[in-house]
Amino acid sequence: MSQKPSIPQGTRDFGPSEVLQRKYVLNCIEHAFQKAGFMPIETPSMENLSTLTGKYGTEGDQLLYKILNSGDFIKKVNEQEGNQASEKIELNSKKILPLIAEKGLRYDLTIPFARYVVMNRNDIQFPFKRYQMQPVWRADRPQKGRYREFWQCDADIIGSDSLINEFELIAIYDEVFHALKIPVSIKINNRKILSALAVACGSEDLLNTIAIAIDKLDKIGFEKVIEELQNENLNEEAITKIKQYLQLPKGIEALSNLEMICNNNEHFQKGKEEILELLSYLKNRINGTIELDFNLARGLGYYTGTIVEVQANAGTLKMSIGGGGRYDNLTNIFGLKGVSGVGISFGLDRICDVLQELDLYPKNIQAKKSKILFCHFEKAGQMIGLDYTIACRKNNIAAEVYPALTKKIGKQLDYANALGIPYVAIIGENEIKENKITLKNLKTGTQEELSFSDFLKQHQP
Amino acid sequence: MSQKPSIPQGTRDFGPSEVLQRKYVLNCIEHAFQKAGFMPIETPSMENLSTLTGKYGTEGDQLLYKILNSGDFIKKVNEQEGNQASEKIELNSKKILPLIAEKGLRYDLTIPFARYVVMNRNDIQFPFKRYQMQPVWRADRPQKGRYREFWQCDADIIGSDSLINEFELIAIYDEVFHALKIPVSIKINNRKILSALAVACGSEDLLNTIAIAIDKLDKIGFEKVIEELQNENLNEEAITKIKQYLQLPKGIEALSNLEMICNNNEHFQKGKEEILELLSYLKNRINGTIELDFNLARGLGYYTGTIVEVQANAGTLKMSIGGGGRYDNLTNIFGLKGVSGVGISFGLDRICDVLQELDLYPKNIQAKKSKILFCHFEKAGQMIGLDYTIACRKNNIAAEVYPALTKKIGKQLDYANALGIPYVAIIGENEIKENKITLKNLKTGTQEELSFSDFLKQHQP
Repeated sequence: MSQKPSIPQGTRDFGPSEVLQRKYVLNCIEHAFQKAGFMPIETPSMENLSTLTGKYGTEGDQLLYKILNSGDFIKKVNEQEGNQASEKIELNSKKILPLIAEKGLRYDLTIPFARYVVMNRNDIQFPFKRYQMQPVWRADRPQKGRYREFWQCDADIIGSDSLINEFELIAIYDEVFHALKIPVSIKINNRKILSALAVACGSEDLLNTIAIAIDKLDKIGFEKVIEELQNENLNEEAITKIKQYLQLPKGIEALSNLEMICNNNEHFQKGKEEILELLSYLKNRINGTIELDFNLARGLGYYTGTIVEVQANAGTLKMSIGGGGRYDNLTNIFGLKGVSGVGISFGLDRICDVLQELDLYPKNIQAKKSKILFCHFEKAGQMIGLDYTIACRKNNIAAEVYPALTKKIGKQLDYANALGIPYVAIIGENEIKENKITLKNLKTGTQEELSFSDFLKQHQP
Repeated sequence: MSQKPSIPQGTRDFGPSEVLQRKYVLNCIEHAFQKAGFMPIETPSMENLSTLTGKYGTEGDQLLYKILNSGDFIKKVNEQEGNQASEKIELNSKKILPLIAEKGLRYDLTIPFARYVVMNRNDIQFPFKRYQMQPVWRADRPQKGRYREFWQCDADIIGSDSLINEFELIAIYDEVFHALKIPVSIKINNRKILSALAVACGSEDLLNTIAIAIDKLDKIGFEKVIEELQNENLNEEAITKIKQYLQLPKGIEALSNLEMICNNNEHFQKGKEEILELLSYLKNRINGTIELDFNLARGLGYYTGTIVEVQANAGTLKMSIGGGGRYDNLTNIFGLKGVSGVGISFGLDRICDVLQELDLYPKNIQAKKSKILFCHFEKAGQMIGLDYTIACRKNNIAAEVYPALTKKIGKQLDYANALGIPYVAIIGENEIKENKITLKNLKTGTQEELSFSDFLKQHQP
């Protein structure tokens, strides 16, 4: 019974060189997190669905991967639905979901972090600076740069409402993308500005509707955004204000126009104040430039203050490769009030896609491959090679002995060449007699006879 | 709407110190893998259920986590089951499973590796030595040392049937546990010996039945194992042979008894030959001792030659913390014949449990915490602290500025103390005037006034 193997759509295998490239990026991000005093945590891949559901909007809920309960998972359905006499079975997915699935795969690292903070609040020293680099899963339609399993690298500071924290995180974005040599646009805005617009349009309750529509601006364009808002029954005056808003230029110069659109309301004043304070921290303290973009909205509902997004600014992949913002009420849902936090996320997989396209990986990223392969013609030589291999490793030199017994030395050299092993040592009858090895440098083609202890001395790391 | 948060049974959060302890073990294992020329790969968390099902025995299939299809997952059930007119809904979990779930979480790293090898066979240089360190999931009953999400660290060599490979892997076990200072028993056996017993008992087809029963010996004891085999309708003669087998002493001395039990059949001869060859490689080449234990059986069905298991040999947690073996036919199921492989697995979570219990973690494992916290009384001092923080980080010194504005210096010192930050620099009115910092060593309590550039010079890493 043979089957043609495949992997699920939207997921990928990573071979040795990809694993090493991903590690290069992870290390670069982790280094920046650690230098800024962030501490690592990890949370389980699975969370209770009650933890995840309702936190990412209606669309997010649909994208959650749900895990089927173990054992006779349909029993509860039979019990609850079974007593209705019915001609036809007609089950409703939404209705039976809670009966057959209690757990889901995490959708991001922010909600699990909020859950972690609430569960460990008594052991945590606030402000708590944590980082977390783990995969997340979304049942989204796979396309360029969009995977169903992908890694996020998050840094959050929770328990402090100082805008210094926003500065710290944006400085980390700046540092990491500078180190990776990816040209980026770092855009910021403040949710309070969007609140101000919502209030000016009639009610703060409109915030999410307006934010979700504006968030699609890049994807669907001006006309469609307006259309979507008209369908939400916003009145003409509101639509006019939003049109004016969407046509604002970027940068602080637009604040005076914005003041008029928002009738200089309280939300506007607070938002403006925060933006100006943050910009004052950023001025002359980072490598890149910051774009104040009022059309930046961010899809997630939990943001309440500064929002930030990073876009790759070269190649064909001008995607969002990072984003974040301040959330004042995220731990509230789990019962801990008054703890404000702010966080950023790096999208590892997209960053790797960009580095690949722009050919920005350093050339020296490669596996710590073996330095030497011991080759032989028969058992006696192989056994000596085995001893030398062990001695090499004890001296921290990665080494291998060709495992199979074969007289074909060419096959053994091919193996070394294919793996990029730079040296082979041949141990034949003569070498055994003279207690030497024939050392061949596969790059230069030169070879010499020497004792193994001389080799060790010369190649000590 | 506030909810008391929790995490799924059998899963855990890891705080900063646990993440670092786990990394210490991972690094130790990875170092040994790399020194022996293994290359890293990673596979997706999700696999198609067709890849996973039927590979781990009936019990294994039940322990697989299945992922509910996205969207209207129950539609196919309605379509297929809906046309039966019925008084009562009575759905069968087994029957509807394939209609609602196509994917599952990986159960181990070996089957995904076999799948990877088959899918990438044209790009792989054989013998292929790969390592993989990733989480796996099993819906097992949680108990001491048994988690539902846990990490495996696997090394496999595929495409070579040389017993040198078995030696290499056992040497890695030996090296890693020696480095971690965990006292272990490394037990080996050979599946061909169990085949020989099965043949002697009447048929090679009995191999799995006998292996599964013997595998439980430690858990359920001699009497229950015999009972289980009697229930499988083995005849008296067979039961007598198995009783003799189970009472064999350990070590090569038992081979002569074994020869009689197995009537010196072909399987016995081959198994004996392999065991003696492997023991000859191991002799004098590793730190620990190897136990030849004929009662070692390993639960998984795919092993065909050498099998190995490592048990912690101290403390209360005398658990299996690693295991593996040779499989001749694993890629067959995915359509690639004649590729023999052998692999080992380290159980990260149990190894960490043992290290914790035996207090064997090195004392210097700790977060790369900040070296200095810049403290202040007002905005001006904070801004200078921010600049110094950035300058520190540029010089690879992890540093922080206290984010909130507060006159309470005690609160800022408490924060540094709680996080174990060794130095604080106070920047008050005087320090600003004199362009200095007051540097306090929190361990010794000493303090001095100096310029920031002097601090940098003294603390350059």
